[in-house]
Amino acid sequence: MRMSEKPVVQIDHAIHSLGPCNYPSPFPLTTRAGLRTTHFVHDRAGVALDSAPWEGSEAKPLLLERAGPRERLFFNPGVTRVAIVTCGGLCPGINNVVRSIVLELSYRYRVQSIVGIRFGYEGLDPTTRLPPVELGPEVVNRIHKEGGSILGVSRGKHEVSRLVDQLVQDKTDILFAIGGDGTLRGARDIHQEISRRGAPIAVVGIPKTIDNDVLFVDKTLGFDTAVEFAREAIDAAHVEATSARNGIGLVKLMGRDSGFIAASATLASDEVNFCLVPEVPFRLDGDFGLLASIERRLAQRGHAVIVVAEGCGAALVGQDSERDPSGNPRYSSLGSDIGVHLRGAIQEYFNSKKVQTTLKYIDPSYMIRSVRANATDSILCDELGRNAVHAAMAGKTGVLVARIHGTFAHVPLEAATLGRKRIDPDGEYWRSVLESTGQTPLI
Amino acid sequence: MRMSEKPVVQIDHAIHSLGPCNYPSPFPLTTRAGLRTTHFVHDRAGVALDSAPWEGSEAKPLLLERAGPRERLFFNPGVTRVAIVTCGGLCPGINNVVRSIVLELSYRYRVQSIVGIRFGYEGLDPTTRLPPVELGPEVVNRIHKEGGSILGVSRGKHEVSRLVDQLVQDKTDILFAIGGDGTLRGARDIHQEISRRGAPIAVVGIPKTIDNDVLFVDKTLGFDTAVEFAREAIDAAHVEATSARNGIGLVKLMGRDSGFIAASATLASDEVNFCLVPEVPFRLDGDFGLLASIERRLAQRGHAVIVVAEGCGAALVGQDSERDPSGNPRYSSLGSDIGVHLRGAIQEYFNSKKVQTTLKYIDPSYMIRSVRANATDSILCDELGRNAVHAAMAGKTGVLVARIHGTFAHVPLEAATLGRKRIDPDGEYWRSVLESTGQTPLI
Amino acid sequence: MRMSEKPVVQIDHAIHSLGPCNYPSPFPLTTRAGLRTTHFVHDRAGVALDSAPWEGSEAKPLLLERAGPRERLFFNPGVTRVAIVTCGGLCPGINNVVRSIVLELSYRYRVQSIVGIRFGYEGLDPTTRLPPVELGPEVVNRIHKEGGSILGVSRGKHEVSRLVDQLVQDKTDILFAIGGDGTLRGARDIHQEISRRGAPIAVVGIPKTIDNDVLFVDKTLGFDTAVEFAREAIDAAHVEATSARNGIGLVKLMGRDSGFIAASATLASDEVNFCLVPEVPFRLDGDFGLLASIERRLAQRGHAVIVVAEGCGAALVGQDSERDPSGNPRYSSLGSDIGVHLRGAIQEYFNSKKVQTTLKYIDPSYMIRSVRANATDSILCDELGRNAVHAAMAGKTGVLVARIHGTFAHVPLEAATLGRKRIDPDGEYWRSVLESTGQTPLI
Amino acid sequence: MRMSEKPVVQIDHAIHSLGPCNYPSPFPLTTRAGLRTTHFVHDRAGVALDSAPWEGSEAKPLLLERAGPRERLFFNPGVTRVAIVTCGGLCPGINNVVRSIVLELSYRYRVQSIVGIRFGYEGLDPTTRLPPVELGPEVVNRIHKEGGSILGVSRGKHEVSRLVDQLVQDKTDILFAIGGDGTLRGARDIHQEISRRGAPIAVVGIPKTIDNDVLFVDKTLGFDTAVEFAREAIDAAHVEATSARNGIGLVKLMGRDSGFIAASATLASDEVNFCLVPEVPFRLDGDFGLLASIERRLAQRGHAVIVVAEGCGAALVGQDSERDPSGNPRYSSLGSDIGVHLRGAIQEYFNSKKVQTTLKYIDPSYMIRSVRANATDSILCDELGRNAVHAAMAGKTGVLVARIHGTFAHVPLEAATLGRKRIDPDGEYWRSVLESTGQTPLI
Repeated sequence: MRMSEKPVVQIDHAIHSLGPCNYPSPFPLTTRAGLRTTHFVHDRAGVALDSAPWEGSEAKPLLLERAGPRERLFFNPGVTRVAIVTCGGLCPGINNVVRSIVLELSYRYRVQSIVGIRFGYEGLDPTTRLPPVELGPEVVNRIHKEGGSILGVSRGKHEVSRLVDQLVQDKTDILFAIGGDGTLRGARDIHQEISRRGAPIAVVGIPKTIDNDVLFVDKTLGFDTAVEFAREAIDAAHVEATSARNGIGLVKLMGRDSGFIAASATLASDEVNFCLVPEVPFRLDGDFGLLASIERRLAQRGHAVIVVAEGCGAALVGQDSERDPSGNPRYSSLGSDIGVHLRGAIQEYFNSKKVQTTLKYIDPSYMIRSVRANATDSILCDELGRNAVHAAMAGKTGVLVARIHGTFAHVPLEAATLGRKRIDPDGEYWRSVLESTGQTPLI
Repeated sequence: MRMSEKPVVQIDHAIHSLGPCNYPSPFPLTTRAGLRTTHFVHDRAGVALDSAPWEGSEAKPLLLERAGPRERLFFNPGVTRVAIVTCGGLCPGINNVVRSIVLELSYRYRVQSIVGIRFGYEGLDPTTRLPPVELGPEVVNRIHKEGGSILGVSRGKHEVSRLVDQLVQDKTDILFAIGGDGTLRGARDIHQEISRRGAPIAVVGIPKTIDNDVLFVDKTLGFDTAVEFAREAIDAAHVEATSARNGIGLVKLMGRDSGFIAASATLASDEVNFCLVPEVPFRLDGDFGLLASIERRLAQRGHAVIVVAEGCGAALVGQDSERDPSGNPRYSSLGSDIGVHLRGAIQEYFNSKKVQTTLKYIDPSYMIRSVRANATDSILCDELGRNAVHAAMAGKTGVLVARIHGTFAHVPLEAATLGRKRIDPDGEYWRSVLESTGQTPLI
Repeated sequence: MRMSEKPVVQIDHAIHSLGPCNYPSPFPLTTRAGLRTTHFVHDRAGVALDSAPWEGSEAKPLLLERAGPRERLFFNPGVTRVAIVTCGGLCPGINNVVRSIVLELSYRYRVQSIVGIRFGYEGLDPTTRLPPVELGPEVVNRIHKEGGSILGVSRGKHEVSRLVDQLVQDKTDILFAIGGDGTLRGARDIHQEISRRGAPIAVVGIPKTIDNDVLFVDKTLGFDTAVEFAREAIDAAHVEATSARNGIGLVKLMGRDSGFIAASATLASDEVNFCLVPEVPFRLDGDFGLLASIERRLAQRGHAVIVVAEGCGAALVGQDSERDPSGNPRYSSLGSDIGVHLRGAIQEYFNSKKVQTTLKYIDPSYMIRSVRANATDSILCDELGRNAVHAAMAGKTGVLVARIHGTFAHVPLEAATLGRKRIDPDGEYWRSVLESTGQTPLI
Repeated sequence: MRMSEKPVVQIDHAIHSLGPCNYPSPFPLTTRAGLRTTHFVHDRAGVALDSAPWEGSEAKPLLLERAGPRERLFFNPGVTRVAIVTCGGLCPGINNVVRSIVLELSYRYRVQSIVGIRFGYEGLDPTTRLPPVELGPEVVNRIHKEGGSILGVSRGKHEVSRLVDQLVQDKTDILFAIGGDGTLRGARDIHQEISRRGAPIAVVGIPKTIDNDVLFVDKTLGFDTAVEFAREAIDAAHVEATSARNGIGLVKLMGRDSGFIAASATLASDEVNFCLVPEVPFRLDGDFGLLASIERRLAQRGHAVIVVAEGCGAALVGQDSERDPSGNPRYSSLGSDIGVHLRGAIQEYFNSKKVQTTLKYIDPSYMIRSVRANATDSILCDELGRNAVHAAMAGKTGVLVARIHGTFAHVPLEAATLGRKRIDPDGEYWRSVLESTGQTPLI
């Protein structure tokens, strides 16, 4: 699906490069003369930011630099020292990326020094770190068969200069940072501090956020797998709802600022009646509000299925004065408790109306975050890992690697961290959700 | 992934339209004033055929018409008569498309006459047909939970004029044809015959081929699911290979003209050593041929995993004269038996060398074709079905609906049936496969 | 596994029978003379209640009546009227049982009148009922492909005489009651009321409780499937725990009075460090209590996985006076909130010790209850359904059908409802759990 | 299910024991005085061979020795040397058993010397062996997450005295042999040769055959998982059959001498029309034969699903003289090609009758053999592994460990290898299959 119709920021940042590339690539693209074979990718190859223009439009398309192996390298593979760090919450596919980076570096570039930082940026901070682990093909061989991160993850802020001190002290040449919004902002800051110091260290990010909310990026790794399992949760809610008289199935899914998982799982299931996402305001009360709408649905069909993204608290608007006189919880601060809050509100509403209902509440988040990547995500992870290696070995830095309209590209970290990708309530994607659920504006 | 780097045909066909649109859309896009809401799609909205141009290129991008609901309709929904036909081999997601077409027509456009043609074009041919079945929300409600086609499928050619006679006799306004290469060529022929007769019947195709070989199309429906299960077959082959001394796992996958399933499953598994596809020639014999390459692999690592697409017979070149004196099978005619042939050749080779090996052969095709669509495919199917309805109701005809670089578009059937999408052996996608397997040219 | 080493109640109830069997079975066991074929089951065929005696023991084994088709029937199939009711919480396999009962009655016995009661006993109570639905092969054909109950379920008590009035008024001959403890006690009461009235109505129960806590019964339907999915929840918790520094995974599983799901999922996963069940008392505090034990585990291994059955509140003993001075929650009343309570206690403990931990809490219950039956459960459901039909047609009443040491038998409802099956803390099954977790007594 | 109603052999062999038990068990059953805890198992505890006697029968039940931890050990754990070998075809759960043996020996008995023999008995034969691998908790920690055998397997005969020479030379105290019929006969021979030499080496078998055909044993490990996946193959065949006009789905499943997988998968799927097993003779030709029966089924219902066990060739009887004049293939030698043979016979039959059919043939065997054990099998494997360790440490030898009517017992290898468990065509289990398929005798 096409999820980000109108990116609100401009890419006016050049791709950062550490300098001239003095080493030939060992990449075996032309090993046997006379045979057709793949080509190196040239820096002038581009990827259009907007793939769906209007006929007759004269606007020059904005281009990103295409990812892929370069003919010349900045780093001398034989002496390059690489570190990999994974941060943030778990997400299917982290181990796949780690494995692909290690295999590409080891087997294709013959890099011999690769370490894994333990437990996120915490492992780069001299005040909290555990020693890193050596990584090689033997260590990573089977890790893509399981979810999680063999390196461990953590959240939390660290003093950037301390992290750079550690990188310099370890003589690290390349840092691969796998993570979401916070991680990529951290990588951007590390990159900027390195630039200030003039150190020849490449920083390359790989966007990993189960919420799929990274600007410009088609899909972040793990998103497809998350939607697959989120569909199972909705299927379960649907079975529970249809097996009870006035049965209500309520599923809370991941999505703090963007409702992509909720919306895509709704489309995949095609059995949801109300899909609530942070981007689209809704009310509980009033004739058009959620509660009355559920009541009408129960009267007509005898059951209802509701999906709510965890960040929906801020989308809850204008509480009835009767229900919310003064000191009530501010919904914007509900955080991940919006599901529990909604459950309570629905039960209270029907109790007050003396309508007997059976509500089942499902919160599958940690069962989803920890599963193995499905095939589609495994391919994505593999290509992200390998393209990140190509970028870093050619001296690209301060970039993330991402698939955009089907092609892998380099995106400056400064640009990617200017905001978040969100569902456009006017766009085609949300229209599909509305067609699937049949829901009217809940406001 | 980006699979079709260089489409070899030009789209110089205009989109066919049955005529002026005299009916307003009942589509509820603006039901409540003052609210932000989704828009109808304008006919001048486009989708770029090439989303990855070179920087500085002055070439004007070719555009396709964007899919989506139109503000004005050619058909009057209340009296429109619709038929749906599914043809060819099974593929995950057929029922999802049928269901989405029926639900969109029924709930959103309020069309009341929808029938399902039984067993493919056979059900439109007066000499072979069974009566069609009435379709409505109750009938299709649960069908997306299972694989297969509730309408039934068939292969085989039928006299086009007889099929059009039947459509005219049934007073059909819209025919949705869900199928692959043969089906879409059939739809094109039916559309052309209808045009010749000047009949106001819309023909809209939905590309369904598990091989993913339809020109211009990102992915055909069912492909992602097929890759998911193909990966399981490869995982099984890998387990068998590593559990035996000199173990060889050989997996034959779908792909008559294009090796996309074999290649993508190879990437998803990341444990394949040799991936054979119709687009890339290979030899069995000789120092660089497959057999000697397997032998080297066994000597080094003790096991090997091989994936072969069923259409690889034609890619087998230059048989050794010793092995193939005169009357041998022509490999181009091996059809789906290439797996059995390879198994025999490998066993014979190692027997003749007195090397003890254990070969396990896996052919999972019919277990893959019949499964339920995964979440990603379910979303694709849902959007294809709904966009096909939008196109037909607006009088578009002779088109297929497809996702191109992430956006849904209309593609003229004449253009889409000019050839097949194939892996570009010089392109990025095949390069990823080579990086994953580490295989050298087998020739 | 062998779960009920020492049933604490004696079976001193005879099997109830409605009377002499005047009709020949239409069951096609001997359709063609001279061939070896299966036999009808004789009423004197037994099933031993204790299959693991001591050598030299002289005790006469207690026998149950073996289930299976009888040569003579009490009911005349052509005019028999059957009703099926499903009650209690959802459980994988309910639809399978309904389907097997209907298919066996329709295809094998040629019974023509079968109805499904809507939403449990509520549908038998004239004050609350919706009309029953007609059931036949066409209706039930595909229902075993999905979880839930097509008839709907409910909990809650109903006046027994009203239910029997309705049965009598509907001229029901046979009532099949599929459900757990409450349902079976309800069936027993209905049976006793019918007996008091001398009505010739057979009542046959099928034990369905996801907790697996029905006396004498090897496994209740859905239990195997529940364990399969509970293992996935534990796997997720293990991935989360090992991916964080001092990571703790806490999984709450079903089990109000008996911890079979928690214990079996622990064995199946083999990655649990602490398994808490209602049958085995434990403390939070003290040197040997859970909290200090987790702390030791974290110090040694860096992560811990804990499984708790929902009914464990009552097993929590002797709170430290310091922590629990006066008005604390009584743990025996914690109900399904024991997981939330434990999460709080663990977090508070480590916070107070200034030990940084990351705890992920998983409660998969409604995702488990609603899934489709796995193969093993499907077989069990099929055989339960068919044997229930055999029993009822032969006039057995006041019984449930169950598999005992691998053979199907009739158990008087009076005996089966005398108590619940529980884990024997001295027995082999719990010893296996202790060997798997390595946990010491937490007390 | 109860699969072996009438074992045809008597257990008149005593359990072999290496001698008096001089060492106390370190097993922590009574670590803290005053607490209820599990007990050691006494040698006089039994398991009844027949759990379903007739009422009034005076026959003394035959008892087997119950498995479990003994209070006194024959071997001194600190100096015991253990070897594990896995043989035969792959089967889900082998790695689980290996892991449980290693963990039980390491963590519970504190045994420090454990090796894994490579590639079956081949690794014990000095003429073919690779060096064994050291096994410990770190090595086996994650292996239960994947199918296959980390030790590797092989088939083939070896000189018994050479194997025993190697065991003696390696100073092995205990050999655990995990495998099926051939493996257990090999273990029996090794045990007998060891006895002849008077060496104090314990040989303990764990029955692993996907066919589930080991005498006395409820279920062999991997069987449940195999049935789960075999059901998927049947589901696929059913989808293919119902999606085509006169569609036929034909599935070949494992089962050389016994049809348990075919029969149980038939019950689990409940959509099979003809189930063919080695134990029940059938004809292709004639009015009651398979071909005419399929024809009748197609005429009535339009599709048919057939399951055939690979060993059914021998069950094919009395070929028509017309079809089988002289030199035809002897069906008893068809081996695993019975599926291919049946496919040909069915296609030829309908071609000759000018009936158009669509037959899809599915052979899932290697996809089934290599998957991870499901939860039920994981529990079984865990308990088998641990009970095998208990048996061996107490000096039991020449036995296999198995679950019988739900309780684990020791069975003398001499008795277990006297024959194979087979479906009783007169018994309850096969009757269930007949009720599910509705098939009449095909003869």
